[in-house]
Amino acid sequence: MGGRPTWLYQLSKAGKLCVPAMNVNDSVTKQKFDNLYCCRESILDGLKRTTDVMFGGKQVVVCGYGEVGKGCCAALKALGAIVYITEIDPICALQACMDGFRVVKLNEVIRQVDVVITCTGNKNVVTREHLDRMKNSCIVCNMGHSNTEIDVTSLRTPELTWERVRSQVDHVIWPDGKRVVLLAEGRLLNLSCSTVPTFVLSITATTQALALIELYNAPEGRYKQDVYLLPKKMDEYVASLHLPSFDAHLTELTDDQAKYLGLNKNGPFKPNYYR
Amino acid sequence: MGGRPTWLYQLSKAGKLCVPAMNVNDSVTKQKFDNLYCCRESILDGLKRTTDVMFGGKQVVVCGYGEVGKGCCAALKALGAIVYITEIDPICALQACMDGFRVVKLNEVIRQVDVVITCTGNKNVVTREHLDRMKNSCIVCNMGHSNTEIDVTSLRTPELTWERVRSQVDHVIWPDGKRVVLLAEGRLLNLSCSTVPTFVLSITATTQALALIELYNAPEGRYKQDVYLLPKKMDEYVASLHLPSFDAHLTELTDDQAKYLGLNKNGPFKPNYYR
Amino acid sequence: MGGRPTWLYQLSKAGKLCVPAMNVNDSVTKQKFDNLYCCRESILDGLKRTTDVMFGGKQVVVCGYGEVGKGCCAALKALGAIVYITEIDPICALQACMDGFRVVKLNEVIRQVDVVITCTGNKNVVTREHLDRMKNSCIVCNMGHSNTEIDVTSLRTPELTWERVRSQVDHVIWPDGKRVVLLAEGRLLNLSCSTVPTFVLSITATTQALALIELYNAPEGRYKQDVYLLPKKMDEYVASLHLPSFDAHLTELTDDQAKYLGLNKNGPFKPNYYR
Amino acid sequence: MGGRPTWLYQLSKAGKLCVPAMNVNDSVTKQKFDNLYCCRESILDGLKRTTDVMFGGKQVVVCGYGEVGKGCCAALKALGAIVYITEIDPICALQACMDGFRVVKLNEVIRQVDVVITCTGNKNVVTREHLDRMKNSCIVCNMGHSNTEIDVTSLRTPELTWERVRSQVDHVIWPDGKRVVLLAEGRLLNLSCSTVPTFVLSITATTQALALIELYNAPEGRYKQDVYLLPKKMDEYVASLHLPSFDAHLTELTDDQAKYLGLNKNGPFKPNYYR
Repeated sequence: MGGRPTWLYQLSKAGKLCVPAMNVNDSVTKQKFDNLYCCRESILDGLKRTTDVMFGGKQVVVCGYGEVGKGCCAALKALGAIVYITEIDPICALQACMDGFRVVKLNEVIRQVDVVITCTGNKNVVTREHLDRMKNSCIVCNMGHSNTEIDVTSLRTPELTWERVRSQVDHVIWPDGKRVVLLAEGRLLNLSCSTVPTFVLSITATTQALALIELYNAPEGRYKQDVYLLPKKMDEYVASLHLPSFDAHLTELTDDQAKYLGLNKNGPFKPNYYR
Repeated sequence: MGGRPTWLYQLSKAGKLCVPAMNVNDSVTKQKFDNLYCCRESILDGLKRTTDVMFGGKQVVVCGYGEVGKGCCAALKALGAIVYITEIDPICALQACMDGFRVVKLNEVIRQVDVVITCTGNKNVVTREHLDRMKNSCIVCNMGHSNTEIDVTSLRTPELTWERVRSQVDHVIWPDGKRVVLLAEGRLLNLSCSTVPTFVLSITATTQALALIELYNAPEGRYKQDVYLLPKKMDEYVASLHLPSFDAHLTELTDDQAKYLGLNKNGPFKPNYYR
Repeated sequence: MGGRPTWLYQLSKAGKLCVPAMNVNDSVTKQKFDNLYCCRESILDGLKRTTDVMFGGKQVVVCGYGEVGKGCCAALKALGAIVYITEIDPICALQACMDGFRVVKLNEVIRQVDVVITCTGNKNVVTREHLDRMKNSCIVCNMGHSNTEIDVTSLRTPELTWERVRSQVDHVIWPDGKRVVLLAEGRLLNLSCSTVPTFVLSITATTQALALIELYNAPEGRYKQDVYLLPKKMDEYVASLHLPSFDAHLTELTDDQAKYLGLNKNGPFKPNYYR
Repeated sequence: MGGRPTWLYQLSKAGKLCVPAMNVNDSVTKQKFDNLYCCRESILDGLKRTTDVMFGGKQVVVCGYGEVGKGCCAALKALGAIVYITEIDPICALQACMDGFRVVKLNEVIRQVDVVITCTGNKNVVTREHLDRMKNSCIVCNMGHSNTEIDVTSLRTPELTWERVRSQVDHVIWPDGKRVVLLAEGRLLNLSCSTVPTFVLSITATTQALALIELYNAPEGRYKQDVYLLPKKMDEYVASLHLPSFDAHLTELTDDQAKYLGLNKNGPFKPNYYR
């Protein structure tokens, strides 16, 4: 779901972007729905369908406390897991503290946790050294991006035995009999082992379609060979299309209030930098 | 706490801003700590100190689901209140839905709720008409800004009796004996009736001080007579200064990871548009 | 899992119980683990595996706020559903209020809800009349006992069409095209469509085994032809056997404290009536 | 609120109880409302009014996971604190695990926590040795019973300086300058530093009054010189009297359902041993 905007920005910076591009991934609705709200449900679903693990009382470390990590942590905490966070960014780390999670380095907890989940967008976050130190039957999975976050390649060595126990679930077995439960061979758990609610797909697809329409219809010169964020008003439009399914009733500004706030009654209601 | 950036942007738009300005209010740390996390605690504290109300089972309507509203709603829901939301912005409304709140127009629930809380930044959100329809002993207060959100002026009429029951708490009494409990005469509850944790003050003050230092030290020409957001790196610096009090341990990127992500190992870790 | 102790008590009352019996179902560990904690997870799992429904923003009515209902409600609320409760017992109803749920009669919300879940131990809680009034694509399932809570028989009439869309999932189609999604034909969702964690099975099986051992080993005359609750000390023993898997460290009473409390240092720590 | 039933049972056991007694403390409404739901709110209120502490990110240890402890932990967790539990009873310890708390011995965490809360009903749970090891500005308070849980006497020695910083708040100062913040001199925080909602008082007072009426009106011989639990039906009656303030609508059993369940349509709905 959603590409990695990092690549777009790198292409743009290198002068190699040959068309205008919309960074749909960082629109508010995409960020919140596809990442936070969707992952809040799919982490539970993906773990249950593959391992039938009980969440209550489990110790879990989540690497990365961005939107995906926030969604995973909220769900796991709500179901009685004890969650630790690793972070590189002090702002996200401070948010994790305020949300009631210990912020640790992976090494501090790797021996004691029952589940390891990566949500970083980074690579080699879980290394062979970490895998060597995990306890028996520890579950390892990736909710971040691509298949690089867990160093799965390092596990394909002669001294380790792989045993496929069911679709998307491998036991990697150490010489001393220790088993690590690897899900989806380190690929995205939410895409491999869980379903994506049609509601979330609808939000993402609508956003993508509107972005394409905007790029196609825009008068020459509005967009250059660069990466743009979706105009706030379109983001709001996507959201408004999805409110009726919750029977949600929006309040309208009075003329007086719109004037007071300096806003158009039809939006956009937030500045472009708002998240 | 924090000015209203709307005014700065209006001044700038009108060409009347005579110095560069930093919109500190919309820095991530300020938004999250001063608004979301602080209000999560001060809504409870402010209501308890003024009214001793029990939260469990109470029906509450919160007007506005921005950071302040999100903080209020999370706290009240966690303590067993049933919370309704009013919103003008479809994005925030959709977030409220996904967080488990009914999104309604104020008129739909005004007769049944026990507490009304405004967090909009708007004016006349609670009108005399709403106040007339509230049930006996309904509590009304403002967590938003200024003293305009509740139309308190409309209550200063001869047919209504005001009775000060304790500091910051007025009973406004209708001819039929109905009482509405008005807190802080419609001014900010969190500033009038609650305390602000020193930790949050430290974050806000540090952010403001760094913004001033940046403006003062910046080479001529870096900032024009406009409104700027705090550079992400400074925001991250403020956060990192406050991590030790939680005994939080930040993870450092390896060279290889920094290269993969296209980031400097010392940050900034997120694009400027990130919230 | 666990029989219906009501039957045992009815047999006993009628003088038809021909052996001593242990009411294992009402032991604390069974009640809390098999019912509350297990259902907290299996309601989510069962709904996801059968329908892929998104929980966020969904309106759900849960009939019955006993241990099973409490577990279901806590999980659904935590994932962003808006939950209504029906109850016959004022004590449970008051608990639901304090936990932040509206207590309603089924008729009040049946037209608006997205999911109906029964957890009552009763029969005909969801009647044909209720089913007739549900909105299109409403999901109906049973977490309580047996297959009597939803009046499924009333749906087997010529004017309604049944369409099996996947294992354990039927669409019942009204003449106007409305579809109700019936799970497991009204049998227990947690047993039919979800897995039971081995940890919970271990607690239940250990409790049952200990009860049988106690009955077998008991000196003649300790137990008559009646229904007994598991001795508190055995309940505590079952719990203590399961603590190491959470790396939980129990505190021991000092002699002085044991004397002060009038307890044996090895338990039982709670009176028999404690839940 | 509510006496200590332990004493009643000890008197009874010793044959020294000279009148029949009702153990009102262990009625369901008293346990749930006076203990769990009330403490959920008063722990926050008591800490705020005395210390203005921010809950987010704070490390807290709660000694005892009975109803009072459960209430305190739920509230603190919901507001972003990281909570550890100590327990002597394996059943309560296992519940703590499933609710997402680490169960530890006090010594394991005493150096790192920001707040220590006792809810045990025991004595000397926090000893001078523990107090010596606390970090600077650690807050210590008692939500349990009496004033015995924290060994306050051990702090009244010449080498420690007491400084009263406001009503109910003492700083106890060690020779090296370390300060421990002691609330209410170890007496009950919820009674000394917080308010009790009138709603909860109403439930407790109604229960006590009904118990007295029952004892007074009972035909000779119904109650002997022993300790009795409140009849379930009265407990239900107390609850039903308090439902209207939440606008809660109770469902009534049909004749058919009552017969199926073997219940009277007017209750009692649960067996006497139900909690």
